[in-house]
Amino acid sequence: MTGYRLAIGSWCVGGMGDRYTPYTDPVPLAEQIKRVAQVKGVTGIELVYPFEGLPLSDVRQMVQDAGLKVAGCICGTIIAPPFQHGSLSNANSELWQKAIDEGKKNIDSVAALEGDIVSFWPGQDGFDYPFQVDYRVVWDRLARALEQLSDHNPDLTIVLEYKPKEPRTHSLIANIGKTLALCAQIGRPNLGVLIDFGHALMGEENVAESVILTHLHGRPMHIHFNDNYAKWDDDMIVGTVHPQETLEFLVALKQTNYRGWVSLDQFPFREDPVKACQLSIDNLNALVAMADRLDLTALEAAQATMDAVATQEIVSKLFFGR
Amino acid sequence: MTGYRLAIGSWCVGGMGDRYTPYTDPVPLAEQIKRVAQVKGVTGIELVYPFEGLPLSDVRQMVQDAGLKVAGCICGTIIAPPFQHGSLSNANSELWQKAIDEGKKNIDSVAALEGDIVSFWPGQDGFDYPFQVDYRVVWDRLARALEQLSDHNPDLTIVLEYKPKEPRTHSLIANIGKTLALCAQIGRPNLGVLIDFGHALMGEENVAESVILTHLHGRPMHIHFNDNYAKWDDDMIVGTVHPQETLEFLVALKQTNYRGWVSLDQFPFREDPVKACQLSIDNLNALVAMADRLDLTALEAAQATMDAVATQEIVSKLFFGR
Amino acid sequence: MTGYRLAIGSWCVGGMGDRYTPYTDPVPLAEQIKRVAQVKGVTGIELVYPFEGLPLSDVRQMVQDAGLKVAGCICGTIIAPPFQHGSLSNANSELWQKAIDEGKKNIDSVAALEGDIVSFWPGQDGFDYPFQVDYRVVWDRLARALEQLSDHNPDLTIVLEYKPKEPRTHSLIANIGKTLALCAQIGRPNLGVLIDFGHALMGEENVAESVILTHLHGRPMHIHFNDNYAKWDDDMIVGTVHPQETLEFLVALKQTNYRGWVSLDQFPFREDPVKACQLSIDNLNALVAMADRLDLTALEAAQATMDAVATQEIVSKLFFGR
Amino acid sequence: MTGYRLAIGSWCVGGMGDRYTPYTDPVPLAEQIKRVAQVKGVTGIELVYPFEGLPLSDVRQMVQDAGLKVAGCICGTIIAPPFQHGSLSNANSELWQKAIDEGKKNIDSVAALEGDIVSFWPGQDGFDYPFQVDYRVVWDRLARALEQLSDHNPDLTIVLEYKPKEPRTHSLIANIGKTLALCAQIGRPNLGVLIDFGHALMGEENVAESVILTHLHGRPMHIHFNDNYAKWDDDMIVGTVHPQETLEFLVALKQTNYRGWVSLDQFPFREDPVKACQLSIDNLNALVAMADRLDLTALEAAQATMDAVATQEIVSKLFFGR
Repeated sequence: MTGYRLAIGSWCVGGMGDRYTPYTDPVPLAEQIKRVAQVKGVTGIELVYPFEGLPLSDVRQMVQDAGLKVAGCICGTIIAPPFQHGSLSNANSELWQKAIDEGKKNIDSVAALEGDIVSFWPGQDGFDYPFQVDYRVVWDRLARALEQLSDHNPDLTIVLEYKPKEPRTHSLIANIGKTLALCAQIGRPNLGVLIDFGHALMGEENVAESVILTHLHGRPMHIHFNDNYAKWDDDMIVGTVHPQETLEFLVALKQTNYRGWVSLDQFPFREDPVKACQLSIDNLNALVAMADRLDLTALEAAQATMDAVATQEIVSKLFFGR
Repeated sequence: MTGYRLAIGSWCVGGMGDRYTPYTDPVPLAEQIKRVAQVKGVTGIELVYPFEGLPLSDVRQMVQDAGLKVAGCICGTIIAPPFQHGSLSNANSELWQKAIDEGKKNIDSVAALEGDIVSFWPGQDGFDYPFQVDYRVVWDRLARALEQLSDHNPDLTIVLEYKPKEPRTHSLIANIGKTLALCAQIGRPNLGVLIDFGHALMGEENVAESVILTHLHGRPMHIHFNDNYAKWDDDMIVGTVHPQETLEFLVALKQTNYRGWVSLDQFPFREDPVKACQLSIDNLNALVAMADRLDLTALEAAQATMDAVATQEIVSKLFFGR
Repeated sequence: MTGYRLAIGSWCVGGMGDRYTPYTDPVPLAEQIKRVAQVKGVTGIELVYPFEGLPLSDVRQMVQDAGLKVAGCICGTIIAPPFQHGSLSNANSELWQKAIDEGKKNIDSVAALEGDIVSFWPGQDGFDYPFQVDYRVVWDRLARALEQLSDHNPDLTIVLEYKPKEPRTHSLIANIGKTLALCAQIGRPNLGVLIDFGHALMGEENVAESVILTHLHGRPMHIHFNDNYAKWDDDMIVGTVHPQETLEFLVALKQTNYRGWVSLDQFPFREDPVKACQLSIDNLNALVAMADRLDLTALEAAQATMDAVATQEIVSKLFFGR
Repeated sequence: MTGYRLAIGSWCVGGMGDRYTPYTDPVPLAEQIKRVAQVKGVTGIELVYPFEGLPLSDVRQMVQDAGLKVAGCICGTIIAPPFQHGSLSNANSELWQKAIDEGKKNIDSVAALEGDIVSFWPGQDGFDYPFQVDYRVVWDRLARALEQLSDHNPDLTIVLEYKPKEPRTHSLIANIGKTLALCAQIGRPNLGVLIDFGHALMGEENVAESVILTHLHGRPMHIHFNDNYAKWDDDMIVGTVHPQETLEFLVALKQTNYRGWVSLDQFPFREDPVKACQLSIDNLNALVAMADRLDLTALEAAQATMDAVATQEIVSKLFFGR
């Protein structure tokens, strides 16, 4: 497996808290960048627009000084008030326009920082209760906003990070299917999908299947790695709960000849964040090596029989070393 | 709310069993039809192709004698061996072709019985283990099969019943998003979606949103009612666990001017099936009346604020009678 | 249904945030108390030790001035660092002792404030990863700590609030069963259970059954009301998703002759907190009235048949007004 | 890890079906025994009372001829009608007594077959709907029945197999906590717990913790191995989805010095059952070897820090071979 590059989301090494308590103090961006650079094997960083309000030239210099590249930027402003009831889908026209404007600034930042990927995770775009929103309104808003954002800079790839829930009880862009259907509806070639391993697991997806579907639909793709217990976005260290599905995810990336960034997105609330990221990267590299040891021809022959024992004998051998 | 018609799936009043034990003996189709006719308020029946091998003329007569109409037929043969590893997506070319042939016979049956809806629930099309199938192969097969089936009789509406899992641990056609993305990919106007309330709940969907999305994507739609605990396809009596979401489902049907069949799909393993269906129909009618009492203008005004308290005050009043 | 009293947890009307963003500013305790007093029908408040460090006499006066009574106190200090790896079960002896000391202060506060209930929710006592803790050590610690706390003031009732997960991926005191088994092991009569409706739903419990089990095991009980989607602790307005199970919960309280406090525990992240609480109280009162209209003799006769149709006919009539 | 013995449940190699279709024909017990004997490394079999009505002497001879030992028997009759509304908890006195009588015959069979373990999985003892049963009645029945069964032959160990749901939407004996609380209430030393890996995962348990809790409560224990996706009892091949939690389960058995039978309980609906069992046994043995390679002293030192990175570094090394 070659051609991919490893990155870490800057938030993975930032301050951590939840709705009950903070666990660690806020960490300035400058320090986040340094921490990412400490993780061996990593060459890129994903940043969160608006970069604490720092000038883009400063951000660019800090990343360069750390020996890193900007993989891309995610739009952070649309996750916080006044967008608590939605950003790109907000039923209030003024807020909706404001969210689109923020989105365009995120796109411009990626261009200015020479990043590769513009990410949007419209986490507040959803609802908490039955009857809370008029689905006709919010889905129309969302589609029209994404048209505008896709057209803002057609040279850049925009990816939508889907997630079933949190912080809302229901997200609009909830899973791979809704994301692909939305992309088809909008019909812009630079609009694609951010597959987060844990978000997909939460939605009871097989993540490798989601990669293949994105590929079959001809959509650009970006990747977030982590792990969880398949019920919630626990954002854990890679490979600690679902190693086989992580391996299968990697094999799907190989089969689709994925050449982009592979990023970590984890929340080490109680752990040393650099060590937690390092262990994820080490596990990921070990799984990549495992993917390369996997005899794909034999696997595909076994898959042609559709017999689970035939395929699992191959996978089990790889894991349990017989 | 007008223009819709109530039907019952013949299997709801058939013999019941699970992987551990049978609960009731098999019930011949003739008796199933009579039982459906006993449920007050119901005018249609959904049948399962191949109708115990009876001649279509006999089936037609039995339904007519019972004072019912054929709402549609679901293809039963593709759920059983030799299709245990998949039907319309089977990696084995011979089985795949055979499944398509069965599908065409299901379509022809609906035409012959003057039904309105051709249903496919490809429940065996999926996988149980990581690595078990080559997703590129099975999704391609599935798309090509559905193209053929959509083109077989373009005058008839074909609907795909999605479900996250069971009998496989993962279905290909798992949720509203994957179904709409697949329909978009295939691009046939007579191909649509069967929204089963319980299947949508299992997939953590808000079912009303799924109705609206289907409408926004311009897809034909068919409806199955039941209830469950949002974890598994318990196929329970309507309105017994999630009355508000059931009401919202009905309101969405009203908003999209739904004029088709509304069917029950439930499994009263341990109950008198006619009584269980009657209670579902009675609850459904009560919820329809509630939907008609709901002030849609006031609701939409509250939804424009996106404030959950504003909308829930309206809904709570309706349910708790203040 | 008589003899119970309504209270609200002070945090329900405090500042709200999650791991991504704050939604509202912190709210001083004085203001929280005033807000609770604005909710019609409520006579009590649940407070969080250590009360922002205010002298107990001040707290007492503020509550009295607001026309409220102290229902009880929950120990807030054990949820925050340095207890992020556990409080009453911490493997570090010093931290463990410190947590016990905090617990005793919580108990003493309830005595000083003439409250009725001492609550402990050991939310940090659990683990996030396989292999993270030695279960033999942490469960032993937990049991010994609870012995000490139960013995600290045997005149006061101590209740343990169970919850399957959050903030840890796995809590030690996860569900009704583990709580009752722990109480049985410790063997102190003043140690009981705090049943939070939403926590029980998350754990796939029928909450009424949990009430009955607590009663059958002879344990003291305290109650938190809210609602959720049965997957996560959404802490929503009462009765908005699961009205039948909420009604059944109330019926179980009636059957066990519950005479204590009934509190709200909800998180209106995006809503006006006073209005959100008022709607919960109004829905709760409507459901109490419904419980009183329920013919218990008829219900029990139907339950003796174990036939779901027989019991649901009674419940459906109550909800859908036939 | 020594002293344990491997067995297979006879049903794992029997005919398979679900509520939609049969997959394979019924398999006579004689053939089931032969199939179990084909799996290398296995020395025992778990049988299902009443053994197709065969005389016990015949059963005994068949097992002996196959070179196997009877690990134990599970009571099969209480899962089928007339017990569809409950067996040991049935509200109908006559059925309840009949279920107890069946249970005693199961106990007597184990004695006659010189098995070690008497198993009860009261799968029909639960409910499907809110309000369906009077929890006070059914829990009282269940406790009194188990007292009688425990006292029937105090020399034999009786274990209760808990499971959150299926075939009912809610089981009474749902999880480790409820089982241990029930055992404590009944107070018979020969009454214990059957921990099925998949049932525990379904209930969001960490299975190793459940082993330790059973040990701390001083209860006898029996073990079923399999795997699933933590949502449903998929009864899959061991180690194919959750290898780390399976390893941790084995480590807990080692730490508690478990010396009993370790059985497979899987449902290879679509697979060759002997091959599926063989792969489970091979994976299990590989994980046992891994458990033996694990440095328990180092692990416990890491656990004393409660730091997930410290423990996962050890576990990851074991799995990913750095």
